[in-house]
Amino acid sequence: MNDSKKDAAEAAVAQHSVPGVTVAAVEAGIRYADRSDLVALSFDEGTTAAAVFTRNAFCAAPVTVAREHLLACDFMPRLLLINTGNANAGTGERGLLAARHCCEEAAAVLGLDGSEVLPFSTGVIGEDLPTDRIVSALPKLFAARSPADWEKAALGIMTTDTRPKLGSRHFVVDGRTYVLSGMAKGAGMLRPDMATMLAFLTTDAAVTPDLLDTLLRRAVEMSFHRITVDGDTSTNDAVLLAATGAHGGPLCDDVDSELAKGFAAALESLCLELAQGLVRDGEGASKFVEIRVSGGRDEAECLDVAFTIAHSPLVKTALFAGDPNWGRLLAAIGRAGLVDLDVTGVRIFINNLIIAENGARAVDYVESEVAELMRGEDLQLGIELGRGDARARVWTSDFSYDYVRINAEYRS
Amino acid sequence: MNDSKKDAAEAAVAQHSVPGVTVAAVEAGIRYADRSDLVALSFDEGTTAAAVFTRNAFCAAPVTVAREHLLACDFMPRLLLINTGNANAGTGERGLLAARHCCEEAAAVLGLDGSEVLPFSTGVIGEDLPTDRIVSALPKLFAARSPADWEKAALGIMTTDTRPKLGSRHFVVDGRTYVLSGMAKGAGMLRPDMATMLAFLTTDAAVTPDLLDTLLRRAVEMSFHRITVDGDTSTNDAVLLAATGAHGGPLCDDVDSELAKGFAAALESLCLELAQGLVRDGEGASKFVEIRVSGGRDEAECLDVAFTIAHSPLVKTALFAGDPNWGRLLAAIGRAGLVDLDVTGVRIFINNLIIAENGARAVDYVESEVAELMRGEDLQLGIELGRGDARARVWTSDFSYDYVRINAEYRS
Repeated sequence: MNDSKKDAAEAAVAQHSVPGVTVAAVEAGIRYADRSDLVALSFDEGTTAAAVFTRNAFCAAPVTVAREHLLACDFMPRLLLINTGNANAGTGERGLLAARHCCEEAAAVLGLDGSEVLPFSTGVIGEDLPTDRIVSALPKLFAARSPADWEKAALGIMTTDTRPKLGSRHFVVDGRTYVLSGMAKGAGMLRPDMATMLAFLTTDAAVTPDLLDTLLRRAVEMSFHRITVDGDTSTNDAVLLAATGAHGGPLCDDVDSELAKGFAAALESLCLELAQGLVRDGEGASKFVEIRVSGGRDEAECLDVAFTIAHSPLVKTALFAGDPNWGRLLAAIGRAGLVDLDVTGVRIFINNLIIAENGARAVDYVESEVAELMRGEDLQLGIELGRGDARARVWTSDFSYDYVRINAEYRS
Repeated sequence: MNDSKKDAAEAAVAQHSVPGVTVAAVEAGIRYADRSDLVALSFDEGTTAAAVFTRNAFCAAPVTVAREHLLACDFMPRLLLINTGNANAGTGERGLLAARHCCEEAAAVLGLDGSEVLPFSTGVIGEDLPTDRIVSALPKLFAARSPADWEKAALGIMTTDTRPKLGSRHFVVDGRTYVLSGMAKGAGMLRPDMATMLAFLTTDAAVTPDLLDTLLRRAVEMSFHRITVDGDTSTNDAVLLAATGAHGGPLCDDVDSELAKGFAAALESLCLELAQGLVRDGEGASKFVEIRVSGGRDEAECLDVAFTIAHSPLVKTALFAGDPNWGRLLAAIGRAGLVDLDVTGVRIFINNLIIAENGARAVDYVESEVAELMRGEDLQLGIELGRGDARARVWTSDFSYDYVRINAEYRS
């Protein structure tokens, strides 16, 4: 490695490193050989945490156990133990025992209480978790922990993802510079209320669990809950936010403090980056599409319209084809369930170019112009409902042959 | 044609023919050459009718005009004028004028009032209806009318359908044999609340419009509203039921009469056959899947579960792959929004073979057995919720490469 490359590499490490956090990823052979599939995030004592989990009624064993442990450790976990290759979902009572067993074994090695370990799993549903392989790999995993290996960890939590999703923010409050780093995996089963999506965010600021919870929920609502690939949700979703306090600044418990505001802004920005990264890497995705709905009576109806469009297989296949098929957009808006919708007041835009109004194609519409726009990989669909001031944004991808191939071949 | 073939052909004609109804299909060149695209169903004077239309807020011009005309003619229309190749949807005010113009021209040729003509369109959205081609073809269309050409008419209303959907029922009441014949087109955009789906049913019984309306709504609820291909609905859906009374039997106005009961049974049976025929011919469909949900607290939650499964792209791609991926079924059930669902009480079956229970794979599950079952083209997914006595059935198809191909290529 030459010096400038080395500097760049060190800068990248410095960019992601969070005082009070060490990370590691190793090969445990859970389902596939020759890939990292067991990841640890260790936190210094005193670290606080908050989490948001799937709302799917069939939540996986690790979700149940992580919820229990987070309560039992008073929101001060010391270790996140994450595996891919097996979701430990649809495994009934045996799955709960398996998740608890791994936590106990990890805690024993590190001299922690079992409840200070939170388990996260993603991968195939309905197979028993190979606890032996995980437990055998723990010494190797813990020995590998370092402040630097964020990229490795972000690779280690991937399933059908094609690239790691990793980001950092530095925020300055009262002359102190704090860091916030996060990683996420997803790619399939994404949608509001999340999906087989895991995200882990850590900061060196000191924040109370209550305030972490408030800020995390707000950030998730505007990011991970506003993305969708296929409308399916998963049994294993989780977003965890931890604050180590290792920076040594004041403990933050006031949502109106400067630290809370600076942290919240960094958190919302990073969550949005990671969430959009999940959509860009969506299964078979060839387009990244922002759907902006404005002029609604309230945010809820804007979201209804946005998600109806985002979930329409006809719209998604047209996006894949680069076909400016505003008829399908119009049909999706029409079935979104809005009360008393005056269809003549609705206007549809692609990248700020009007394509439909008055219930018909826009007068200035030139198909070749719009088709040209749609060749881009990043698209904006704008819907003006013309009946209020509310607005909402949602991000999604298209439906391609590859989506079918990936999901016909992959046993999730 | 040899005699036995001739007899069979005559029997088929006799099977579909409905006294008081003549049908015709001709080539008007609306969008494609060398195919029938303009269809007429003519009714004798005194024929009564009822109709159910799309609930999409963006309803197409012909839907608006057919609704108006049905009211204006006191539910006694004389002609259905149906075109494919152009949906006359998303055409604003011009579309309404075009639909009315075609009705007026047809009425003038036949000596009817404009309101006695009901227009129906299916095909591309957002293009102006080529009224000149339709009007020019009217004399040829009307000259071609015969009691026999049901097969031709069923072919003439197709778009991406690969085969005509046509059926008949004979029902006997008080020693009189009545006939009910119907045709439908669909293939894409199907779902509850219907889709780009047109169905026309006629009987020679004499039934009041009010009773027709009651019986039609009931039959549609249990058939066309229980099918889905992709969850999208259309701007043009319509199901029309006409009763010519040409049989000469008594006028039926009592829902509890023997005639109403016999007619209702025939109607429900034929609607179900046509609806299932639409799913079997769904875009890119390689499987026909019945989803039976039982043990729900009420029918609504059974339907929520059934449609969540039926619309899940992950379930549909697994069906395409013949993959007994009960994990995806379980995840879909878990996100259907049921209050207080005890997931350990849920059982999942494929063709009566149990595959999941107690939140996990069934003890007796043998993957090779289930995979063998799933090679069949007709599948039943059974979901027992274990919390009540309500049940519901829904029919759907899988998601294949062909679905993407058809919808990426076809401008609807």
